[in-house]
Amino acid sequence: MHLLEERIKKDGRVLSGNVLKVDNFLNHQCDTLLQDKMGEEFRRLFSGKQINKILTIESSGIGIACVAARFFNFCPVVFAKKTKTSNMSDNLYQTNVHSYTHNMENIISVEKGFLTESDNVLIIDDFLANGCAIEGLLELCRQANAKVQGVGVCIEKGFQDGGKKLRAKHVDLKSLAIIKSMDETNGTIVFEHLN
Amino acid sequence: MHLLEERIKKDGRVLSGNVLKVDNFLNHQCDTLLQDKMGEEFRRLFSGKQINKILTIESSGIGIACVAARFFNFCPVVFAKKTKTSNMSDNLYQTNVHSYTHNMENIISVEKGFLTESDNVLIIDDFLANGCAIEGLLELCRQANAKVQGVGVCIEKGFQDGGKKLRAKHVDLKSLAIIKSMDETNGTIVFEHLN
Repeated sequence: MHLLEERIKKDGRVLSGNVLKVDNFLNHQCDTLLQDKMGEEFRRLFSGKQINKILTIESSGIGIACVAARFFNFCPVVFAKKTKTSNMSDNLYQTNVHSYTHNMENIISVEKGFLTESDNVLIIDDFLANGCAIEGLLELCRQANAKVQGVGVCIEKGFQDGGKKLRAKHVDLKSLAIIKSMDETNGTIVFEHLN
Repeated sequence: MHLLEERIKKDGRVLSGNVLKVDNFLNHQCDTLLQDKMGEEFRRLFSGKQINKILTIESSGIGIACVAARFFNFCPVVFAKKTKTSNMSDNLYQTNVHSYTHNMENIISVEKGFLTESDNVLIIDDFLANGCAIEGLLELCRQANAKVQGVGVCIEKGFQDGGKKLRAKHVDLKSLAIIKSMDETNGTIVFEHLN
């Protein structure tokens, strides 16, 4: 998606440790017009799919997921939780996800009533690197017997193996921008375009 | 807001300890059409205000904030973070917030560049009970010298004192639904309508 690539080039910052910082428009301050355009693009990319629910994970997937839902007939958005709050029931689908960003293990969970075998799910997240979060969401769908129609991510770090692993499993993965390489010494970011 | 009140009556569940569970449409599974209508209503309620930024707090405020932004000329949404991630700088506005839901203290933070003295801020959150989260967001705005034009919340628990305290400080607080009382023995919910 040209608009997103241009924005990453303009505002993204390459830090040491393969970190791409895009918190000025994607995951701390959110450019909501860009979210809207990305939502529309997800609709175009998954135009052949019947989707009745969007699944994401807190926190930074929630904004793009809820904005994108407008283009999917305002379908419900369910976000997997990383912490069990005192209000949650014990009737949960759960799995373990390693977070490299926070350097910890998270148990992510969705209440069973919100993910069912009658659901045709689009998984949306802001980032895909090693794929742990997406694998966790796929596992929750597997537990619920929900059908995963596709996975849409805003930015894929193509030089990490999450995307390759998902495509090898024939997951219909669409990334709005795929970073082939980035160079912290001069800030250069090179994008990849899959056929 | 009639639509929201009706939805709370239909789908909200009153649990012991003054808990109102609305996770099937507001803060775990999100009804995105309702979010859209609530965003439009916030625009109507704050129609006289110049607003160039929406501030919320992770996680459950993010969805309604990003959806509402469409009605405020797609202004940016900044969400305060509850955990410091490895990617964040040390250049932060920070304050301490007690979370009754999680029964813990959270340090919430916003990177300084995303909240400035030129900002006219609308604070949005899904719930207002004792007001700790909103007070924390107000404190971040105070640190940044940002002007708070108003506070919009979806559901206010009118029988807790957060709303009263904010109104006493002349904060322009608008709640889309105010719960006057609720009864866990029979599930009855009574709403309040301020002039």
